[in-house]
Amino acid sequence: MNLGEIVFNKLQELGKITSSEEGVTRFFLTKEHKKANKLLKTWMEDAGLKVKVDNVGNIVGEYRSAFENAPTLVMGSHQDTVKNGGKYDGALGIVLPIVVFKDFIKKVKTLPYNFKIIGFGDEEGGRFGTIYLGSKAVVGTFDYELLNEIDDDGVRLKEALENFGVEGNKIEESKIKEKVDGYLEVHIEQGPVLEDANIPVGIVKGIVGCHIYNFTFEGMAGHAGTVPMDLRKDAGVGVCSTVVEIEKYVSTVDDLVATIGKIDFSPYSINVIPGKATFTLDIRSSNDEIIIDSIQKIKKIAQNIATRRGLKLDIQNINKASSCNCDESITKILEKSILSVKNIDINPFYLYSGAGHDAQELKKITNIGMLFVRCKEGISHNPKESITPEDIEVASNVLTEFLKLYPNNN
Amino acid sequence: MNLGEIVFNKLQELGKITSSEEGVTRFFLTKEHKKANKLLKTWMEDAGLKVKVDNVGNIVGEYRSAFENAPTLVMGSHQDTVKNGGKYDGALGIVLPIVVFKDFIKKVKTLPYNFKIIGFGDEEGGRFGTIYLGSKAVVGTFDYELLNEIDDDGVRLKEALENFGVEGNKIEESKIKEKVDGYLEVHIEQGPVLEDANIPVGIVKGIVGCHIYNFTFEGMAGHAGTVPMDLRKDAGVGVCSTVVEIEKYVSTVDDLVATIGKIDFSPYSINVIPGKATFTLDIRSSNDEIIIDSIQKIKKIAQNIATRRGLKLDIQNINKASSCNCDESITKILEKSILSVKNIDINPFYLYSGAGHDAQELKKITNIGMLFVRCKEGISHNPKESITPEDIEVASNVLTEFLKLYPNNN
Repeated sequence: MNLGEIVFNKLQELGKITSSEEGVTRFFLTKEHKKANKLLKTWMEDAGLKVKVDNVGNIVGEYRSAFENAPTLVMGSHQDTVKNGGKYDGALGIVLPIVVFKDFIKKVKTLPYNFKIIGFGDEEGGRFGTIYLGSKAVVGTFDYELLNEIDDDGVRLKEALENFGVEGNKIEESKIKEKVDGYLEVHIEQGPVLEDANIPVGIVKGIVGCHIYNFTFEGMAGHAGTVPMDLRKDAGVGVCSTVVEIEKYVSTVDDLVATIGKIDFSPYSINVIPGKATFTLDIRSSNDEIIIDSIQKIKKIAQNIATRRGLKLDIQNINKASSCNCDESITKILEKSILSVKNIDINPFYLYSGAGHDAQELKKITNIGMLFVRCKEGISHNPKESITPEDIEVASNVLTEFLKLYPNNN
Repeated sequence: MNLGEIVFNKLQELGKITSSEEGVTRFFLTKEHKKANKLLKTWMEDAGLKVKVDNVGNIVGEYRSAFENAPTLVMGSHQDTVKNGGKYDGALGIVLPIVVFKDFIKKVKTLPYNFKIIGFGDEEGGRFGTIYLGSKAVVGTFDYELLNEIDDDGVRLKEALENFGVEGNKIEESKIKEKVDGYLEVHIEQGPVLEDANIPVGIVKGIVGCHIYNFTFEGMAGHAGTVPMDLRKDAGVGVCSTVVEIEKYVSTVDDLVATIGKIDFSPYSINVIPGKATFTLDIRSSNDEIIIDSIQKIKKIAQNIATRRGLKLDIQNINKASSCNCDESITKILEKSILSVKNIDINPFYLYSGAGHDAQELKKITNIGMLFVRCKEGISHNPKESITPEDIEVASNVLTEFLKLYPNNN
């Protein structure tokens, strides 16, 4: 078995730890989390790592270099899933480094840097609705007020930590003490870009920023039969027209995506002209300036349509998350690693992550990098999530080269 | 007080009979219906009409001509309202002929035709969900299976008729026995056309046909951040694009209105590209051919958009109601009546009714005509429904001329 197959099999085994029959449901601080940590511990120890579970439920495997003043490299991802999620989102970024490290350290015996693999307890926020609880604790940004968050069964995070058997009142102890020199996260792409480009792995340039807005158009409700077309103030068609124009505009801008995920018509009746209509806009770019600039343009587009149609327009911002770039100190080594892999001939391919990752939190304390692995049809957060052992093998070889090259990026 | 003021005041009085505090709610076979019939009976008798309530709860006021073989003219409209409706929709078409007839018969003493005013018990279908129950009984198309219809409180129509004190098992007796030579219904426009044209009354050319369709687009759901614009199969934008194109196309066709009253996105999540999206199309014209032809064009528009965007499209018909023309034998007299009214100088203005009316049912047994009265901002089915005593005065004068001219349309 090659490394890709070993990782793939381990992911099938880990994927069996689920509270749901459909897909994988593995929430933070549940018995499934405990079971997953136990399995990961076996694998980490088998790879020669020293293992501990920290006070927020993260599992940490550590290798200490014999060299004095050795730098520290961290890898990892999250063990948790969304409800009815897949076997690879998160899990791949824990299991792959374990398998690759085990294989590599056997050959080289010793490394010039300290090495940690972290399986974060919570990234998806499926249980308490708050994301990145695991990585927040590691970088020291965990807010103790979060301990009062309540899950669907009324259990507080505080109690859940207690039941899990960790000291939830000492989460600050989860904070990584030493200086971290780099963080690398391997993750499935969760999008179709690599598949479309026919490339197994890609180097992540950064994680996009994301702004969310609510648009509300108000016109005049009316009888579907009695109001002639030219006398209507149809808020519904106003919304549709704006949605079409947003798509048209956004498609002309590089490095920008916009999604209208929700539309609501009021009064929502077959034979009544909508008097009010709303939609949500989720807009993302790796460049925060592009988002800000585009929002101004989109506001104008919407206002022009509203004015032309005699509609009132209201626009509310719901959320603003800034973009986060990966660091050249890591991505350059990734690029060299890809070029160093024997038996494959792929050009380093760069792409952005449209979704958020633990790496964003780690960015607060160190240089970050991410390696994406191609997934089928870009599907994730779904039982149909799928990757191939062949692609994992490529990623394993890239990671092996990375371990060889780190920390030298010249 | 002129006739307009008398009618206006009577409508305020009738409008007080309501089961709701907001607007007027007067449902079929309720105690409000009974109270309304009682009040209408007083007014009808005061006008010299012989009054009865038929077996479906319609109130009928009758004048018999002294002339042998005299033709029969019927006027009327419905006493019921929608939930939280207005004071004029329906009621105007009962009260106005009563007041005008009373005034007219006092002057002329005798008429060369028989005359009936009917206050239909149910037109809106607010209680049993089935419309035109009153006029269906009068024209003989009442289906006895409807007796099993149930209201929101679980009361069957059959029991409701019994409680109302009529013989619901003998609804066929409500059928008008004599040959009817004409039916004229006065009604508020329920649209903004007359207001827009600055004209108090309009002659209805006909009642439009109405087809209803469901359109469903299927694409591929995806993460709002990870799928580039050019790789998306966004069912939501497909729907919006189709809605905009439908409006654009329909606006170029005379005598056609189309309304998209409902849109639904799935999965309906801010950060997920809609994988499925649906909308309803309500399309109306006085010319059924135009509807049929337009539906073909709209289907092509939708299919082209679906094909271009890689979406699957499904179109289902939900309802098809044919159009119904008013008869020249009535509309010509209306036209002359308008031209005969002294002290006002308005040109006969023709328009279509986009909403359905009792006249549609009467069309099955006689020649029909309708006179529309301007209402504020086209608002109906709403507490804000509003008409002026001045416009009612114009309508009263037109109706007086009509009673003078009928049945001679030469």
